Amino acid sequence: MKITVLDNILKANDAIAEEIREELASHKVLAINLMSSPGAGKTTLLERTIEKLEPLGIHVGVVEGDIATTRDSDRLRKFDIPIVQINTGSACHLDANMTRSALSNLDCSAVDILFIENVGNLVCPAEFKIGEDHKVMMLSVTEGDEKPLKYPLMFRESSAMLINKIDLLAYTNFSMDEARKNAHSINPKLAIFPLSCTTGEGLNNWLKWMTTELEKKRKRLQKKTKKK
Amino acid sequence: MKITVLDNILKANDAIAEEIREELASHKVLAINLMSSPGAGKTTLLERTIEKLEPLGIHVGVVEGDIATTRDSDRLRKFDIPIVQINTGSACHLDANMTRSALSNLDCSAVDILFIENVGNLVCPAEFKIGEDHKVMMLSVTEGDEKPLKYPLMFRESSAMLINKIDLLAYTNFSMDEARKNAHSINPKLAIFPLSCTTGEGLNNWLKWMTTELEKKRKRLQKKTKKK
Repeated sequence: MKITVLDNILKANDAIAEEIREELASHKVLAINLMSSPGAGKTTLLERTIEKLEPLGIHVGVVEGDIATTRDSDRLRKFDIPIVQINTGSACHLDANMTRSALSNLDCSAVDILFIENVGNLVCPAEFKIGEDHKVMMLSVTEGDEKPLKYPLMFRESSAMLINKIDLLAYTNFSMDEARKNAHSINPKLAIFPLSCTTGEGLNNWLKWMTTELEKKRKRLQKKTKKK
Repeated sequence: MKITVLDNILKANDAIAEEIREELASHKVLAINLMSSPGAGKTTLLERTIEKLEPLGIHVGVVEGDIATTRDSDRLRKFDIPIVQINTGSACHLDANMTRSALSNLDCSAVDILFIENVGNLVCPAEFKIGEDHKVMMLSVTEGDEKPLKYPLMFRESSAMLINKIDLLAYTNFSMDEARKNAHSINPKLAIFPLSCTTGEGLNNWLKWMTTELEKKRKRLQKKTKKK
């Protein structure tokens, strides 16, 4: 019985996610669903990423998902970009319906890349599509290199894994090789970017991946339009 | 409709949790439900805690909750204590029914303190009673001092908060004062223990709290028996 209910919820969610995907495609927006444990560094990544993308003329929009407070979106107020905060109350993840509500308050025509920062949780957010092109997950070195094996779904569903806080590597027993091996055993196609949002090391690889994905999406959409 | 279903699930869960509580009381076991984000250091805390308690003649039992793998229980195999691993599959938290199944495989008559290590998740585990005397949550300094405000339920439900990885304090912008202030604004009664499972600093305060709680529970149960 319980499984049936969940099945229906997920189907209903996926239908809304598909509508969001079409809406974003009509504005040529690349959407990234950013997920991690609490405190891995998602908001700091957004700060570093927006600083780099805006001077390139790539316009960013942000949906912030949190159980409570506007602390994360407050940190992004210094940028001249559209931001919508969702407070989920008790929900441990964003779903497509929440995301649709947020997007109805955000002008997508002025956005190239939309970041949707999910609730800090290495488990539940991975189960819900919210209209994204890519799920991107962040693992910080202080969390441990075995996490892909212990929380496989998120690593399986993601296109890229950012390994953050490499400036703290020397103070932990985190092995980069072990982390890569564990992650690729779950998802061989996972792109992996070690980086530090504090020192800036490794950020360029992540930015390059994203701008390449944006170009690929634009070309794909252009081809579709020509065919019509 | 959805709320009604959840309400029933929680009531059914609480009834089983109450049965577990009675069973544990009959064996004079103190049960700690240990919760945190992934990688905060729950299993390392158990290693350090068992090393200290066993020489005092306080016998420990462990229920390990993980989505997948037996990595955490493997780390505890070196101790001569009863351990049961629960693999939840996709469930993002332990519930009372899972805990009851685990306990049917564990001899509680040989245990003084039972640790139930929950799935690494700062959100969902806080909603489910599993027969514990205390919920204890761990926050690591690398996660950030604003977490009590962003994930209030877990901090509200817990009796004690362990602030782990204080050996890394100098490399982060974590403020111990801010963390205390934020936590106490959510839960004024929360006991707070800064510690490092790497250096051992602060562990004694945590051990003292726990052994005091064990004594208090034993006295309470003794009084009850006398009354009968």
